[in-house]
Amino acid sequence: MTERINHQWRLTSRPVGSLTEANFQWAEVPVPALQENQVLVQNQYLSLDPANRGWVREGGSYRAEIPLGAVMEGGGVGTVIESQHPNFQAGDLVQGMFGWQEYAVLTGRELTKLPNNPNLPPTAYLGLFGHIGLTAYFGLLDITDPKPGETLVVSAAAGAVGSLVGQIGKIKGCHVVGIAGSEEKCRWIKEELGFDDVINYKTEKVSAGLRRTCPKGIDIYFENVGGETLDAVLAMINQGARISVCGMISQYNATEPVPGPYNLINILAKRAKMQGFIVTDFMSRAQEAIAALGEWYMTGKLKYRVDVVEGLKNAPAALNKLFEGTNQGKLIIKL
Amino acid sequence: MTERINHQWRLTSRPVGSLTEANFQWAEVPVPALQENQVLVQNQYLSLDPANRGWVREGGSYRAEIPLGAVMEGGGVGTVIESQHPNFQAGDLVQGMFGWQEYAVLTGRELTKLPNNPNLPPTAYLGLFGHIGLTAYFGLLDITDPKPGETLVVSAAAGAVGSLVGQIGKIKGCHVVGIAGSEEKCRWIKEELGFDDVINYKTEKVSAGLRRTCPKGIDIYFENVGGETLDAVLAMINQGARISVCGMISQYNATEPVPGPYNLINILAKRAKMQGFIVTDFMSRAQEAIAALGEWYMTGKLKYRVDVVEGLKNAPAALNKLFEGTNQGKLIIKL
Repeated sequence: MTERINHQWRLTSRPVGSLTEANFQWAEVPVPALQENQVLVQNQYLSLDPANRGWVREGGSYRAEIPLGAVMEGGGVGTVIESQHPNFQAGDLVQGMFGWQEYAVLTGRELTKLPNNPNLPPTAYLGLFGHIGLTAYFGLLDITDPKPGETLVVSAAAGAVGSLVGQIGKIKGCHVVGIAGSEEKCRWIKEELGFDDVINYKTEKVSAGLRRTCPKGIDIYFENVGGETLDAVLAMINQGARISVCGMISQYNATEPVPGPYNLINILAKRAKMQGFIVTDFMSRAQEAIAALGEWYMTGKLKYRVDVVEGLKNAPAALNKLFEGTNQGKLIIKL
Repeated sequence: MTERINHQWRLTSRPVGSLTEANFQWAEVPVPALQENQVLVQNQYLSLDPANRGWVREGGSYRAEIPLGAVMEGGGVGTVIESQHPNFQAGDLVQGMFGWQEYAVLTGRELTKLPNNPNLPPTAYLGLFGHIGLTAYFGLLDITDPKPGETLVVSAAAGAVGSLVGQIGKIKGCHVVGIAGSEEKCRWIKEELGFDDVINYKTEKVSAGLRRTCPKGIDIYFENVGGETLDAVLAMINQGARISVCGMISQYNATEPVPGPYNLINILAKRAKMQGFIVTDFMSRAQEAIAALGEWYMTGKLKYRVDVVEGLKNAPAALNKLFEGTNQGKLIIKL
């Protein structure tokens, strides 16, 4: 058998500020022979997410840091090429943490076999039916328990998670206000996704925008960005408000300590709740979310878009689209 | 009938920083004649609490601000002198928001009749069986759900609420660490109340003290102070930590906006919860708390002390003992 060549992005230094190509090395290595229970997968779609930035920080984030010299990590969908595990065979569509590389060798335990559904693109498993959809579903419904008539504010509202959160909020009867960073994004979430109102933070101060769009105050905030946006929201929360902390993307590239919000004391004054979560804590209930998301998607209540960038070589540069806000929907690398 | 004279502290200006006697006027007014359903109460014990400071702030806090010119508000225990309400008669022991004055005229609806228990001093109703005890009980048990073996940190640990919280934490099997501001307070909560360990923030940096006393990290934090203490705690929280926000006393006298904690992002990284509450939300369950607190008190598991200052005239000066940390136990004015 001819030796198979694998190309990889390896992490070589920890970024100060943005993660750039200079923090990686483009490596070429042979694919090793499989051992018992191992599976060789060809990576087809690589998921890029804001959380990736935290994984390379010294000390890590909710997980341990990726060591220097190691292949950059990332989730993907791919096809089994060769298998030494009884449950997998060549041709199977699988999902797992393949990393930023063309080929991955994993044990069977580390892989999830995906159904071969001709009506569903493989990218759906990295988005709507993957951690994105589940994050939106559990992060909104379990952490904040939205009630009809309540005002829900979503930051990064045109992002992969935020756009779903706002639509689920509408399904639950909330007054939904999205905060996004361009006219195109604002138009999309309002006219196509059905958000009640939008704030373009590039052209309107968030605090003024919230006063304009939330006349009854804010009951629920789905937090993706942190910083001044969180502060402006805290100034307007109602009694018993709930804040679901999904991300604080404005801080991930920070090189100096970032002070917290000046209005944090409103957590006390308004008897409010602020809670962080991670989707993996809800994995035992994944089927519940997938069933609901699938039904809403099929009946047209939930719309979803992906932003596909071609070529693994472009992964480091593409990741920064998330922090610059230039991606349009769930960001995926097609290998 | 001779006209009865009432002395009152009226709020005349909003404080910048500490609330002082200069913000009040000592007024002398006649007690008005009672109308139907009204009750005249002689105020005997006035409760002073950190929350009083928020009530005089422009814009108020969890409740509306006290208007300028009005009698300063405060809860008390007193005796009925005269009644035009069928449920009350002269001699009844009652509790209510009497304000900073010798006599109060309230409607029957605004009063709670207290049992005439010769074994219980009337001050107990302002403390252990009042909003203090209920705040400790619900704020710890309902908001944080402590489990045996978990590490609980309490700030203002020698205060009225904090000293009860730590003892309830011990009853629930937690490793309890208290933060207080003097050797005497630290000795009291460790040697007499049974806290596992203590940090005197006047002689040891809180962050160093937490590293010393919480080798397994922090699962639960009962927040009374805010500021740097909250930041130091956030740096050490474990996965799934719960922070019950009862108060942020370090900020009540602030004249400039106070930045939030630098480590707030750990709410996300540790999937932690931070929740404010107010005891009045739990009033429908008061009997449950009083029964438990009463049993623990009678069986010696819960100790409690009051700091009684004589004379209504001393109320403005006495209030600042709470912010200077010089009170020893629940602060009460004896009229």
